[in-house]
Amino acid sequence: MQLFYLPQLPESGVLDAEEANHATKVLRKRVGDELWATDGRGTRYRTRLVEAQAKRAEVEIVEKMPSTKSRPWLHLVIAPTKNLDRMEWMVEKAVELGVAEIHFILTEHSERKVLKLERLQRKAISAMKQSLKDWAPTLFPLTPWTDWLDTHQETGGFIAHLEGDNTPHLFNALTANLSSWVLIGPEGGFSDGEIAAALSKDMKPVSLGSERLRTETAGLAAAQLVALKNELDIL
Amino acid sequence: MQLFYLPQLPESGVLDAEEANHATKVLRKRVGDELWATDGRGTRYRTRLVEAQAKRAEVEIVEKMPSTKSRPWLHLVIAPTKNLDRMEWMVEKAVELGVAEIHFILTEHSERKVLKLERLQRKAISAMKQSLKDWAPTLFPLTPWTDWLDTHQETGGFIAHLEGDNTPHLFNALTANLSSWVLIGPEGGFSDGEIAAALSKDMKPVSLGSERLRTETAGLAAAQLVALKNELDIL
Repeated sequence: MQLFYLPQLPESGVLDAEEANHATKVLRKRVGDELWATDGRGTRYRTRLVEAQAKRAEVEIVEKMPSTKSRPWLHLVIAPTKNLDRMEWMVEKAVELGVAEIHFILTEHSERKVLKLERLQRKAISAMKQSLKDWAPTLFPLTPWTDWLDTHQETGGFIAHLEGDNTPHLFNALTANLSSWVLIGPEGGFSDGEIAAALSKDMKPVSLGSERLRTETAGLAAAQLVALKNELDIL
Repeated sequence: MQLFYLPQLPESGVLDAEEANHATKVLRKRVGDELWATDGRGTRYRTRLVEAQAKRAEVEIVEKMPSTKSRPWLHLVIAPTKNLDRMEWMVEKAVELGVAEIHFILTEHSERKVLKLERLQRKAISAMKQSLKDWAPTLFPLTPWTDWLDTHQETGGFIAHLEGDNTPHLFNALTANLSSWVLIGPEGGFSDGEIAAALSKDMKPVSLGSERLRTETAGLAAAQLVALKNELDIL
């Protein structure tokens, strides 16, 4: 099954250039052929091509499928790595595992001070389609840590940071079916001041386990732990 | 901290070409400087350089640290993806999360029929050093599914495959502190015959959750779930 992303549905069924090319050139779809499309906001449509040129393609809706509710997904807050490839694959995998939002933060020890979202957004959409999801993840631009904290103090997020010996494991700290915010620092870790600022805003320190994980692996571990918590609750 | 891999310790402290170059050229270590080294079999050594040329470097042991016991790590059995990059990063991440062995299998729907281990092995060793582990993961060459099953029927492995509605989640099926074998098929899935063969050899079907995961993400999910099971048991 191939899923197309048409964020303007149901108002407009015009495919963007990339989707049009994929439908007509790669998959060789013609007028009258059916496509599955998602609006990225929980609704999937069965559609039919009414125009099918490489540079301009458009569908009409054949059937609207029952909408899927947004799930209590993860809001991942992470300092991007210097190497952009590592962030790209983390975004891809986090989307597969069902992340809702990724917030990029600029911290004292951040090696990456500038971040273009465009490639990462493309990765995210591509992973959404590939894993047949109907919710498009949202990626937020790089924001200084204190600014981020100031505008998100109500989240009660979890910060990956060992605070003494009794730091709970994220898996145990999570509540199933609640929106979870998980904050991951850069390779060099959060600074003491950044930790203090987070704790003063009611962020709760958690452990991701005893292994030494790279930033992007920690992000992925968080995504997996939130997914697991919700999965096991359903069983 | 930098960790060097010297598999011939304690008999020989000669660094291989790559490690010698890293020590002398990148880190600019000189005779008399200390290095941390692991034999990859659970023991770490404090060593001192007695020869430090770019092409030939050697250490002597200053102190042998207490050996770490091998942990009940994961034995991951997986059909490699067509795109080798995806396997490389999976190997890296699985090693960070503590995988013991990776067995590559050739299945009916495998897109990759040939696999050179060398690059993957280098990734694995590099991840071991980077995450400061003292156990070198073992990678096994691509083996046809039935051959693999014939020689591993005593493992009681878990096969990622939905067998009816009541397939247990891998996390629930796992036992903490026991060696776990997890079998992951190719993108196209195991064939019916391959599943039947596995079940006849006492492999147990498990679910990795309701998300549609790529092969490499499934491998990583398995590594994370085994790590988590053992972590939570320690807490």
